[in-house]
Amino acid sequence: MKTTAVIMAGGRGERFWPKSRNSRPKQFLSLTSDGETMIQKTVKRLLPIVDMEDIYIVTNAAYKQLVLDQIKGLPEENILAEPCARNTAPCIAFASAVISRKYDDAVMLVLPSDHLIGYENIYISTLKKAIKVAEKDKNLVTIGITPTYAETGYGYINFGEECGDAFKVERFVEKPDKKTAKGYLASGKYLWNSGMFVWKISSVMENIRNFMPDIYEGAVKIGESFGTPDFEDTLVREFTAFRSESIDFGIMEKAESIYTIPGSFGWDDVGSWLAIERINETDDAKNYIDGDVIAVDSERTTICGGKRLVAAIGVEDIVIVDTDDVVLVCSKNHTQDVKKVITQLREAGRDNLT
Amino acid sequence: MKTTAVIMAGGRGERFWPKSRNSRPKQFLSLTSDGETMIQKTVKRLLPIVDMEDIYIVTNAAYKQLVLDQIKGLPEENILAEPCARNTAPCIAFASAVISRKYDDAVMLVLPSDHLIGYENIYISTLKKAIKVAEKDKNLVTIGITPTYAETGYGYINFGEECGDAFKVERFVEKPDKKTAKGYLASGKYLWNSGMFVWKISSVMENIRNFMPDIYEGAVKIGESFGTPDFEDTLVREFTAFRSESIDFGIMEKAESIYTIPGSFGWDDVGSWLAIERINETDDAKNYIDGDVIAVDSERTTICGGKRLVAAIGVEDIVIVDTDDVVLVCSKNHTQDVKKVITQLREAGRDNLT
Repeated sequence: MKTTAVIMAGGRGERFWPKSRNSRPKQFLSLTSDGETMIQKTVKRLLPIVDMEDIYIVTNAAYKQLVLDQIKGLPEENILAEPCARNTAPCIAFASAVISRKYDDAVMLVLPSDHLIGYENIYISTLKKAIKVAEKDKNLVTIGITPTYAETGYGYINFGEECGDAFKVERFVEKPDKKTAKGYLASGKYLWNSGMFVWKISSVMENIRNFMPDIYEGAVKIGESFGTPDFEDTLVREFTAFRSESIDFGIMEKAESIYTIPGSFGWDDVGSWLAIERINETDDAKNYIDGDVIAVDSERTTICGGKRLVAAIGVEDIVIVDTDDVVLVCSKNHTQDVKKVITQLREAGRDNLT
Repeated sequence: MKTTAVIMAGGRGERFWPKSRNSRPKQFLSLTSDGETMIQKTVKRLLPIVDMEDIYIVTNAAYKQLVLDQIKGLPEENILAEPCARNTAPCIAFASAVISRKYDDAVMLVLPSDHLIGYENIYISTLKKAIKVAEKDKNLVTIGITPTYAETGYGYINFGEECGDAFKVERFVEKPDKKTAKGYLASGKYLWNSGMFVWKISSVMENIRNFMPDIYEGAVKIGESFGTPDFEDTLVREFTAFRSESIDFGIMEKAESIYTIPGSFGWDDVGSWLAIERINETDDAKNYIDGDVIAVDSERTTICGGKRLVAAIGVEDIVIVDTDDVVLVCSKNHTQDVKKVITQLREAGRDNLT
């Protein structure tokens, strides 16, 4: 059976503001020294098991040109441009409906566009196992990440008995507090929920029909119009009418036959500025420094320079990001609060800075 | 007897880098919300006791135009342009020699150009007392500042018996360590050395001749050429030949008849970025914020914005200064280390940033 991939690239990457902007969010930026953008890496690492013509990128209409510019060789019709953001369930329903016009059935990998993978061979090997499990029956497979510490910022997957290469999923749980997270790790029965899914199009469509019949109906209409002159109108009409829903809540927490495969391939969701020092090399004082920077007596500091000189003196545990129109100076304890600044800017009508 | 003033404005203000630059040092900047520059304030507060035509500003030749632009009404010939920096002794000898061509004798106030005075009436009253003391005999008067805490960054004046409005100076001492500074305060016999002096031209010239005959000789030649076509050549030849010497070491630590008058007029030498929160109003979280700034959960932080947005999140006790070509992020404990960055820039041949 054919393997296709759906890469979800509609996010705004707000936690990487001010480098990530509405006009060019995180997935279209390079956050590593090799200069490749996150989405370029995501596509490249898939090519051993998915043909370029079977890779679909779902993104906001505003980013279609960015995708075309960055992913050379991707057929333009494989860019599925959402007219608005409606979370992952409508996104996946849209892609499934379109791809099912091309193939009677196929395996579909659903993948975020802005995560990093350290060990690509292990990643591919894990996906191959997931594909095998997904090809059987109506199985829905989620890739779990074996936790390395008690993270409170991720959802967890509670798994049960082993079935071949996979484990049966008992339940999905929301972001826990620290104590609960520690309990999860100690139990040896919980994985991080990475947001990567593997299933057949027929399996996911059946579940969408069962649990979200409204979204199913709209998606089918969009799929039927794909390639016809009515497509744009249908897409805008049906997609904007969708409610916002995550695939986790919409299907995964309700469906039967959910399996997880534990992955240990150096996954990093690059979820905040703190990730920069994890995914790049740091100096002896544990600073990550990029650009025109003079650092004196500074430790554990991340500095992403822009066009001007950044001078850091005697600072510790902070993040400094310089861009043409904004400079961010943020304590490492507060990287999640970047969103508060974005909110203030929007309230002040200064969307050009967000 | 006429009262004249010599304002020393040749400093580079390096401790206020990157706002203070070689091309426009601290004395030509406004560091307060009223928009007046330091040197403008210095001149303005003197006008109740010194006529504008009797105010002389000694500065580097490169800053002559800045002085002309900022001090309206100052006769151009009252700007004494040093061809190079030689510390305060040659500066004062130069000014004394020039002014002594205009007046047979006169009282001379010698004042830094980059300090702030909170209580100008008390300041004027103190200077008036100093003038009276200086008019008598060959007295040399230094204005001492009554210490408010055990500062280790200033020199101190050890004073003895009271003579009218002044106290006899026993000795000048260099910057002490913390313990010594505390001892000075406890003794009640030490004042901060503010670098403000009052004397007759005849008194200071006689002391220069006695203790620095080489500088005296050169200064007299410069004075004699003042107003003639030879002036520029003489100035460059004689001034560049001077050794670097402070007036404190060159005269004050050696001469007889040294007096001090304690001043309590809200003096601030504005000696580092730490001064900004002292001399300006701060918010409830003790932040000083100027310019286009969004601060979230930040405390005791000084932010001087430039043309771009500065976003500060969760930071404490730091100084952020944004300029067109440099952004500084400096721990409050390290404001003196700004000079280290300047040194690195000079070594790298990047003088345009200093």
